[in-house]
Amino acid sequence: MTVSDRWLLPDGVEDILPPLAGRIESLRRDVMDTCQRWGYQLVIPPLIEYLESLFTGTGHDLELQTFKLTDQLTGRMMGVRADMTPQAARIDAHTLGQDGITRLCYAGHVLHTRPRHMLTGRTPIQAGCELFGSDSEAADLEVISLMLETLRVAGLPRVHLDLAHVSIYESLIGEANVDRNTEEAIFDAMARKSVPELDELLGDCAEGSAGARLRALARVSGGPEALDEARRILQGASADLDAALDKLGRVSDMLARDFPEVRYGFDFCELRGYNYHTGLVFAAYVPGHGDAVAKGGRYDAIGSDFGRARPATGFSLDIRALVSLGERVQHRSGSVWAPADQDQALEGVISGLRMTETVIRALPGEEDCDPAERGCDRKLVKQDGQWVVKALD
Amino acid sequence: MTVSDRWLLPDGVEDILPPLAGRIESLRRDVMDTCQRWGYQLVIPPLIEYLESLFTGTGHDLELQTFKLTDQLTGRMMGVRADMTPQAARIDAHTLGQDGITRLCYAGHVLHTRPRHMLTGRTPIQAGCELFGSDSEAADLEVISLMLETLRVAGLPRVHLDLAHVSIYESLIGEANVDRNTEEAIFDAMARKSVPELDELLGDCAEGSAGARLRALARVSGGPEALDEARRILQGASADLDAALDKLGRVSDMLARDFPEVRYGFDFCELRGYNYHTGLVFAAYVPGHGDAVAKGGRYDAIGSDFGRARPATGFSLDIRALVSLGERVQHRSGSVWAPADQDQALEGVISGLRMTETVIRALPGEEDCDPAERGCDRKLVKQDGQWVVKALD
Repeated sequence: MTVSDRWLLPDGVEDILPPLAGRIESLRRDVMDTCQRWGYQLVIPPLIEYLESLFTGTGHDLELQTFKLTDQLTGRMMGVRADMTPQAARIDAHTLGQDGITRLCYAGHVLHTRPRHMLTGRTPIQAGCELFGSDSEAADLEVISLMLETLRVAGLPRVHLDLAHVSIYESLIGEANVDRNTEEAIFDAMARKSVPELDELLGDCAEGSAGARLRALARVSGGPEALDEARRILQGASADLDAALDKLGRVSDMLARDFPEVRYGFDFCELRGYNYHTGLVFAAYVPGHGDAVAKGGRYDAIGSDFGRARPATGFSLDIRALVSLGERVQHRSGSVWAPADQDQALEGVISGLRMTETVIRALPGEEDCDPAERGCDRKLVKQDGQWVVKALD
Repeated sequence: MTVSDRWLLPDGVEDILPPLAGRIESLRRDVMDTCQRWGYQLVIPPLIEYLESLFTGTGHDLELQTFKLTDQLTGRMMGVRADMTPQAARIDAHTLGQDGITRLCYAGHVLHTRPRHMLTGRTPIQAGCELFGSDSEAADLEVISLMLETLRVAGLPRVHLDLAHVSIYESLIGEANVDRNTEEAIFDAMARKSVPELDELLGDCAEGSAGARLRALARVSGGPEALDEARRILQGASADLDAALDKLGRVSDMLARDFPEVRYGFDFCELRGYNYHTGLVFAAYVPGHGDAVAKGGRYDAIGSDFGRARPATGFSLDIRALVSLGERVQHRSGSVWAPADQDQALEGVISGLRMTETVIRALPGEEDCDPAERGCDRKLVKQDGQWVVKALD
């Protein structure tokens, strides 16, 4: 191996340098502060857990995404977290164990065995909020509103919010009563929105059957007109499906009041990446970026998988990707350059200035360097025996 | 495996809950802000790297501490970082590659295969600063001063700072000219300060020889009187050793001026945990806690191991341990409780309040719960048609 090879980082792994690192830290703080001002309390879940607890209630996708480690203390297998949402659910169910409504937020690195997307790589910085203990529509609304608020904070322009309801697909596929292999093929084709494959798989279904409705729904997505079209397709199917569609309509109307700048859309067969979700799900997109920038939804089932049935909803996002896509204006004032002089008065002035400003103290050999190149716009100089801050010439 | 087993976290791994998580986040921010105000720029090194780059220039200890993973994309071995200092050195040498002086800071989780200490467990939150490109004493002073400043910020009482110089031991053991096995035994006995073992290993050495000096030095530690004692023992040994002792004296005098509340001590054979260090090293302790709360020192050699010789010094600490040991006073104002009412005016008031305050909005089913139990000290109520904030009854 040559020396230069040795310093190559693995694919999807990066050093984050100044000033980007500072912008990420700043957004991380603002997102966390926003969540906390909505009453979500910070938790710090562990970077590693035993596999059994990491995977409870989650899908196969997460297993493939998770790096495995051997615990040298016990010989048991551990994993590095690939998603913090199930960790928050475990904390709610077992560590906190509160009755009533619990609101949690978190931010931290997760690791993926393979990059999900170019921008996030294999080490996204996941931040999110989870709300446990309420199955109300108001809880769904609160969580989606908070997600849109964090995207505002990130300065994301032209946000598009897709709303979907996992139970629509599940109810229809259950009713269609197909064998397991066919069901998997349908799920797969639905997730990829492959209309020809669905036509082939469901082409024989009678008019008005669950299969025919699925096939028709796969063709429908878009704004309010798509919701009307879905209502037409699902007419007379079941009261539950009508209720699901009504909920989608009500929630998007309420959101549009507080977030009129967001475009709302509906997708009745959105399944990709919703591993453990059960009800209303949502994902935010921006133009020119194929992957969702933030997503979430209901995952009531994970509660019972954790041995304590708790309704749950939440969202998460990748701070790293948000910084790349957002148009946040950063107020960065320049630093102050201080000379290397040994002077007790200078020490005092520097200590005082550092309460609010960045002061770079020259070290031996640095006296002649250009302070502007080090991000300074002012310097400390001695005038009439007094240290004063002056603009750089 | 029973259900309750499944939720057990591995030893040395924990869920950090509110309000502790909030205190950790708050200290993390204050430490990072302090470092940045001293001109240290934030970098975010990756959670994983190839083993070759993680271990370059570091000792065997770090290899044992590092969890290994297989990169599924290339089949090569990667490790989860166990120490961020070598990562910062790699970034300075290769990713940034600047001439002149570079100041970097960082904060993030690291993973250890075995707990180093009870308080930190296997997932410490490491924060630190590194200064590259200066071999001056002023650079050592800046880094130690900044470390003591962060301990002040953490509210650590009765800090004791141990100063040592790795080259004292190295110079004497080189001169003693013992075989490799004996050298390892001496290193080991020195690190554990085992005077009887050292007497046995070095008992034959002639008066005034390097071996006899080592044996004598192992008995010396403490305040300024220890420095005088070391001067006596090393008298006439070499100009380099005299210079090392002079440096220790000067640096502690300078530090005492700015940090008079700290107690200073000297330890001439401190070797434990200094894997890649070369010159002046230091460690801060507090009473009742055996492990150093913060430590660092010079590691000029790592620069040449990285293929680019750069003098370097820095420190790091564990935010999690600091929060447990510090006596920081946290100003936490209570939250505001808002009713579930659907009211356009209420929405506006909540949005406005959330710019500076935490507002918890009741969800259906939460109307009758006690806001005080949720951390609220005020509530929003409607009075004469206006929403106003009132103290809880």
